[in-house]
Amino acid sequence: MAWKSSEKIKWGILGCAAIAEKSLIPAFKKAQGTELVAIASRSAAKAQDWAEKFNLPKSYGSYEDLLADKEIEAVYIPLPNHLHFEWTVRALRAGKRVLCEKPLALTASEVMEMFHQAEANKRLLMEAFMYRFHPRLAKAIELLESGAIGEPRLVQSAFTFVFNREQDNYRRSPQMGGGALYDVGCYTVNAARLVFKAEPQEIWATGHLDDKAGIDLTTSVLCNFP
Amino acid sequence: MAWKSSEKIKWGILGCAAIAEKSLIPAFKKAQGTELVAIASRSAAKAQDWAEKFNLPKSYGSYEDLLADKEIEAVYIPLPNHLHFEWTVRALRAGKRVLCEKPLALTASEVMEMFHQAEANKRLLMEAFMYRFHPRLAKAIELLESGAIGEPRLVQSAFTFVFNREQDNYRRSPQMGGGALYDVGCYTVNAARLVFKAEPQEIWATGHLDDKAGIDLTTSVLCNFP
Repeated sequence: MAWKSSEKIKWGILGCAAIAEKSLIPAFKKAQGTELVAIASRSAAKAQDWAEKFNLPKSYGSYEDLLADKEIEAVYIPLPNHLHFEWTVRALRAGKRVLCEKPLALTASEVMEMFHQAEANKRLLMEAFMYRFHPRLAKAIELLESGAIGEPRLVQSAFTFVFNREQDNYRRSPQMGGGALYDVGCYTVNAARLVFKAEPQEIWATGHLDDKAGIDLTTSVLCNFP
Repeated sequence: MAWKSSEKIKWGILGCAAIAEKSLIPAFKKAQGTELVAIASRSAAKAQDWAEKFNLPKSYGSYEDLLADKEIEAVYIPLPNHLHFEWTVRALRAGKRVLCEKPLALTASEVMEMFHQAEANKRLLMEAFMYRFHPRLAKAIELLESGAIGEPRLVQSAFTFVFNREQDNYRRSPQMGGGALYDVGCYTVNAARLVFKAEPQEIWATGHLDDKAGIDLTTSVLCNFP
């Protein structure tokens, strides 16, 4: 069905994630054309708490139940990385449009399958690289395309932060898709692809592993674009 | 012979290079313990011009003649990159100490041979990475070693400038050791080695070649340090 500017897309959220609380729910509330209808959690009580806190009409004690709600047209998935594949596919099959947090999945073949499911179910799937919609970036790309700095030859991008390495953070878990590259390194690769409008032809990478946790604390990548 | 603080080392310069005129000759003039005695050029007239201009006692119309001057104890070699090997070896064999511009040579085996000659002739050989003696860098290294920023994990270094690509510049000549990596990329590799006090274990590199000249205009390198 086509979207009219007078209509509001009805959204649901899978999981009570910090990123949803800090960033997405406030943004959904401010956005035009959007109505946040429901939130789901593995804990019905927590989902209900969040629904009250953010004034959402519905809450669900399981992700399945939210996906079964026919009123909901699109879902936002802020679950830990290793759950993106499963719940994106289930949401698409339930007829939902999906906005899934980065990184979309843990392997290229999972990503291929996710987009295959999106096509098969005729539903939009999008990876949540919010930075691409920032006015500052739009201006930078506009300047690049106007030739203001000439032909881009080199993109150097870094994303770093102080990581206090608390034991219960999903970023420390290889099973949950933790580590620097999945967490924020994907932004830097994405930024280079945005500027060159192409896929890298060759990729070299080297990193420092956290011996205990088995995840990368630092990864450095060199990509060759056409 | 040992150097006493009251003595002045007598220097000669091989070649009338821009870097000598702009940077090294003024620095030699200001330095204590140093006396700039002679300059050599393939053109006797040019050497004489420079000797007058910079108030140097002697000038020579060939590099050999300067090396044959027994009074000269050390030479500075600002010749184009492809001449570093030959004239460093000849200077060492003539009993001179050598300060040679970066990059020391065009291949690792040439560099090995140059240091072999330095040892065999019991003379000091040094590559002119002037930045290492800058007070700012000394302070940065002091801070690093004091643990002020913790353990260094990543060194990101870049050296760029606008290159107007004039045809007669040695930087455009593969035969003369032109190109980005030899010209200024060597600084960035040197800086990483300085911080990690080690040699890289693995190196990946990719670059953009100037199709006409056959030199690299941009080279990006990823190194893995122990």
